[in-house]
Amino acid sequence: MDIVMDKAALAAFMDEAFPQVAGDFRVEHLTPEGIVMRLLAHERHLRPGGTVSGPAMFALADVAVYLAILARIGPVGLAVTTNMSIDFMRKPPAGRDLLAEARLLKLGRALAVGDVLIRSEGTEPVVARATATYSIPPR
Amino acid sequence: MDIVMDKAALAAFMDEAFPQVAGDFRVEHLTPEGIVMRLLAHERHLRPGGTVSGPAMFALADVAVYLAILARIGPVGLAVTTNMSIDFMRKPPAGRDLLAEARLLKLGRALAVGDVLIRSEGTEPVVARATATYSIPPR
Amino acid sequence: MDIVMDKAALAAFMDEAFPQVAGDFRVEHLTPEGIVMRLLAHERHLRPGGTVSGPAMFALADVAVYLAILARIGPVGLAVTTNMSIDFMRKPPAGRDLLAEARLLKLGRALAVGDVLIRSEGTEPVVARATATYSIPPR
Amino acid sequence: MDIVMDKAALAAFMDEAFPQVAGDFRVEHLTPEGIVMRLLAHERHLRPGGTVSGPAMFALADVAVYLAILARIGPVGLAVTTNMSIDFMRKPPAGRDLLAEARLLKLGRALAVGDVLIRSEGTEPVVARATATYSIPPR
Repeated sequence: MDIVMDKAALAAFMDEAFPQVAGDFRVEHLTPEGIVMRLLAHERHLRPGGTVSGPAMFALADVAVYLAILARIGPVGLAVTTNMSIDFMRKPPAGRDLLAEARLLKLGRALAVGDVLIRSEGTEPVVARATATYSIPPR
Repeated sequence: MDIVMDKAALAAFMDEAFPQVAGDFRVEHLTPEGIVMRLLAHERHLRPGGTVSGPAMFALADVAVYLAILARIGPVGLAVTTNMSIDFMRKPPAGRDLLAEARLLKLGRALAVGDVLIRSEGTEPVVARATATYSIPPR
Repeated sequence: MDIVMDKAALAAFMDEAFPQVAGDFRVEHLTPEGIVMRLLAHERHLRPGGTVSGPAMFALADVAVYLAILARIGPVGLAVTTNMSIDFMRKPPAGRDLLAEARLLKLGRALAVGDVLIRSEGTEPVVARATATYSIPPR
Repeated sequence: MDIVMDKAALAAFMDEAFPQVAGDFRVEHLTPEGIVMRLLAHERHLRPGGTVSGPAMFALADVAVYLAILARIGPVGLAVTTNMSIDFMRKPPAGRDLLAEARLLKLGRALAVGDVLIRSEGTEPVVARATATYSIPPR
């Protein structure tokens, strides 16, 4: 599908719509199938031992699929997550950003589905995987 | 299963082990099947429109199942979430605490499974439901 | 929500719409929140050791939520499952029917969500739990 | 991970361990990350309109991850599915075999996780995706 919002437009949308969390995430680049997003390793995402928290990984997967959708349908603020299933497979090492690679598997009239692989920057093993379903309002 | 940590012991464990988030959550009471947890409606959990964010509901479901397990097996810090599947069904109204009712469906030697219904305080419809699987270290 | 198809109407619908599997399942009764369905313990659902297969439990959970929906919206043949998440927690004993207790958590305009507990007849522990999401065509 | 059972060994294992369903599935080939499995389009997998049933796709995803694991750890009959989450995204056309491409994301001491993309043979869009978790007995 054609890209209708580029990296800069997505970042501006985040700043505007989600000021509370926009500083935690960064669009790395759009891909033919989706997007790559970064979670900046802030203190507030950490758990004892320095590992990134589950909710922070959830948020990363969620925003990655969301922006992958918006990149293709434009700034539809009302798309909402209806389901997220996430598997935590390895403890991410402390002090590294996380990179989420999302791909859209379906972008339908009313529902979109994407899956996500999360890795610690510079390492190969998958730390977590997730699938998100979004309900898209009529447009 | 017998309760080996009561409400006060769980609260003390939270303060000690997860000081960054302990102030967000409160054990309401233990139930025969699980636990009821409260998410205090802080500004930092909110999204535009005043609704509670997905990651905050994820965190609530996660901690509810975790403490329901610990109440029955004791303070095992190393239990880790391996899967969480969450369905968001209604937008919670702004300004209300969320209450999560978790019940343990399995508490095995190596795996525990619990499900959770989340409601806004004082309202009946279910805002979100979740299922969490925990891997429990040998004990 | 009001019941618009009773047990007999649901059974007739199954016979008509799904003749290949209608003989495997039986509506036990409608409940205020959902439905109770039975999976008849046929040889073809079994796995080595006499346990009921995963796909048979999947099918039971799926049909239970489906008929719980139809009981309330009428014979909408085009409702389709969009997501099913199922946790297998215990091996069901051989030679017993399974009973699935489904409850609808959301019955919206476009999406319905229900969860299911599956037990072996006459035993208390939950063998499997599932959550199903259905997409409902405009009506 | 090294392959310890090849295509022929996996097929022989299926015939021996799951005679009731072995004829429905065929190992296409092992891949560096997993396996490709085929579901033969039999009448008994079909639903009204000729589409493949949900339970048949569930079974395909389940066996694909299972054999991807066994190919790497050997014929461990006691590995059991603990969770399967499946998203149905498009109706598969009638009369075509389905091909499932499974990749292992984790193959740990006690748990293995794999995800699966299912397509109709000769078509590109993904019909369904699934994630399966297996509990592996000590070995």
